[in-house]
Amino acid sequence: MLEVSKNQFSVMEEKIAKQALQKAYERETSALIANVRDRAHSLTELEDLWHLHDLLSTKRYDIDGKYTYNFSTLVFDFARLVKEGWLHLGDLQGLPSEILSKISAIARM
Amino acid sequence: MLEVSKNQFSVMEEKIAKQALQKAYERETSALIANVRDRAHSLTELEDLWHLHDLLSTKRYDIDGKYTYNFSTLVFDFARLVKEGWLHLGDLQGLPSEILSKISAIARM
Repeated sequence: MLEVSKNQFSVMEEKIAKQALQKAYERETSALIANVRDRAHSLTELEDLWHLHDLLSTKRYDIDGKYTYNFSTLVFDFARLVKEGWLHLGDLQGLPSEILSKISAIARM
Repeated sequence: MLEVSKNQFSVMEEKIAKQALQKAYERETSALIANVRDRAHSLTELEDLWHLHDLLSTKRYDIDGKYTYNFSTLVFDFARLVKEGWLHLGDLQGLPSEILSKISAIARM
């Protein structure tokens, strides 16, 4: 597992990381709510409902898992969110530069 | 298990039963689609989405199971649909009167 280079963030760094995670969470959940509202307008067949159900099943499982703050997996977790577009590197300003570099590099893979 | 008194419907009776089942299916699924479209307008929180997901999970399981034509469980299946309001006794006119009586009696329990 690729861990960050210190065992712990400073109080300020942890605050930045948690706020960034919260921002990403709000972006993804707002987008999902908007998406479901849009799809609902064009629901006409039962199959459309079951496709919506499949989407919600996937997203629920996904969102439940990936927004838990975990220092030991933070570089990977954040890189994934950057890759998906929910987290921006600018949200992470104030974190140690070696961590930002790792997140950025993994997100581009 | 409460079975109908003959081993088989006539061709015409089976047609009536299957058409009634189809009508009930269309009523329930149309109502569900309308319900989801209505709920979608007021989706604002992630919790609302997960409540919608729970509803769809329950309904999908429920609907998948109860609209299979099965002669041996038909009296109970139809009584349940009458009780839930998706099937009307009038849809079943032409079926043997003892079957209609049983369906009607069970639906009132």
